[in-house]
Amino acid sequence: MAQIIESIPNISEGRNKEVIEACVDQIRTTAGCTLLDYSSDESHNRSVITYIGDAAGVEEASVKLVKKAAELIDLTKHEGEHPRMGAVDVMPFLPIKDCTTDDCVELSKKVGKRIAEEADVPVFLYEYSATRPERKNLVTIRKGQFEGMAEKVQEPDWEPDFGGRRIHPTAGVIAVGARPPLIAYNFNLNTDDVQVAKNIAKIIREKDGGLASVKAMGFAIEDEETGRKYAQVSCNLTNYEIAPIYRVFELVKAEAKRYGVTVTESELIGLCPMKALIDSAEYYLQIKDFDFQKQVLENHIL
Amino acid sequence: MAQIIESIPNISEGRNKEVIEACVDQIRTTAGCTLLDYSSDESHNRSVITYIGDAAGVEEASVKLVKKAAELIDLTKHEGEHPRMGAVDVMPFLPIKDCTTDDCVELSKKVGKRIAEEADVPVFLYEYSATRPERKNLVTIRKGQFEGMAEKVQEPDWEPDFGGRRIHPTAGVIAVGARPPLIAYNFNLNTDDVQVAKNIAKIIREKDGGLASVKAMGFAIEDEETGRKYAQVSCNLTNYEIAPIYRVFELVKAEAKRYGVTVTESELIGLCPMKALIDSAEYYLQIKDFDFQKQVLENHIL
Repeated sequence: MAQIIESIPNISEGRNKEVIEACVDQIRTTAGCTLLDYSSDESHNRSVITYIGDAAGVEEASVKLVKKAAELIDLTKHEGEHPRMGAVDVMPFLPIKDCTTDDCVELSKKVGKRIAEEADVPVFLYEYSATRPERKNLVTIRKGQFEGMAEKVQEPDWEPDFGGRRIHPTAGVIAVGARPPLIAYNFNLNTDDVQVAKNIAKIIREKDGGLASVKAMGFAIEDEETGRKYAQVSCNLTNYEIAPIYRVFELVKAEAKRYGVTVTESELIGLCPMKALIDSAEYYLQIKDFDFQKQVLENHIL
Repeated sequence: MAQIIESIPNISEGRNKEVIEACVDQIRTTAGCTLLDYSSDESHNRSVITYIGDAAGVEEASVKLVKKAAELIDLTKHEGEHPRMGAVDVMPFLPIKDCTTDDCVELSKKVGKRIAEEADVPVFLYEYSATRPERKNLVTIRKGQFEGMAEKVQEPDWEPDFGGRRIHPTAGVIAVGARPPLIAYNFNLNTDDVQVAKNIAKIIREKDGGLASVKAMGFAIEDEETGRKYAQVSCNLTNYEIAPIYRVFELVKAEAKRYGVTVTESELIGLCPMKALIDSAEYYLQIKDFDFQKQVLENHIL
């Protein structure tokens, strides 16, 4: 496979196995596209599907997925903890290999147009594909959720990018867009004082003057199995070239010192590009003149 | 590519570009085999060629390489600093993906047999492929070098594994065998006292009671460009699953403390499997329950 684009759509079904499998089958049966993973959350009533392929394969699989989800998922009957506005709620495209964010923007527009035409679901372009600044953030688009969407699309600023001022009666609307690979990464502290985690999160995140491209929040966690309670700094690293994992980690550790607190362990959630991890090895091992492209064996095989 | 085997033969020519290119062409022109790299050392008068492929592709390329080298390289006229006994001096096979050391042992025997038959060059099997304990170590086999080899193969214990008690008149003999991937890794110290590097090397290497699978030596280095002089602990990590890079690095740093010395930088020489580096990231980032196979994106693409 030369060019690789990844898509990680969320569908609004996390309980009915038959529906979930029927949706996932759309990926499985598409040439030029490989299913990597899928997992469901029952309380959110939501599933996330991960697949990769070249632009043509990902386009085909993505359109088929929305058609099938719109056929099987009825948002008028959907209940779950997670906010949602569509049968397929959000569909991001990420550049992984031999392609750029621009290629993914182009793909998102192609896929968005086809979704409106073939699945009859209106489309908002978001993130890098957004046509207005306020559509960059998915949360802003989704505000009002499925129940408020029929009215929202009538507002002057909220005409969908494809499909007109309407919603699909049972499948709602969908956000489609390009975004850089995101790394979900948590740091667990040896304290159960959530305020420490909140303070650290505030210092490291971009929003409050911390590291660019880092999102962070502090949580109080209780491990259901062991009963262990601890505070956690939960991060989304939206660009590991700008804010590498090791730099975020070292900053968390440095700020934790103020409270006499250490990081017990970190957690990598889901998938991560090898370069994001190897960048950290390069830092900690102090490797001089390291050439990622040439010296990592797998780069010659991929 | 499903199965991947790597070979890194050394040929006894590091000066004549035409001969080197003619040898490398044998790899370039073989299907099922990909040339990754080649580099020459003029003072050693020796070149190293790196290629990967499935067993069939690597077998074909390897036999072709020896035939061409035996045709073009004349050991009776060869001068260089590095000890050598054949036109292709040594040919290791390394399991990289979806294969085992046993598969590489099998391949080495197949290739060895064909080299004796088709290139007329007698073969010693070495490392994991060795048929006697004293043939495990390449240095023991090569002792006496090309000039002493015609006599050596007459000794009771030194009949080649393939090709009989003789040498090729100009191409000598060759060592062929399976070995695990090896990582060449150096640690540069902020002292020019070579004795410090020698002491550290002695403590960390397997031979003197250190870490299993680690070979190490201390060197005095002078950078020709900058004139900077420093001591270096130079390592071969012959099994990074047994002795990971980070453990060797931490042990070097710990022992250096005795002399008030620190590690200025490390150097990774040549290629390295991504897992060897990601294992270090996992250690330093303290990642809990990390699943290399599932969580590294590229593992789903390879």
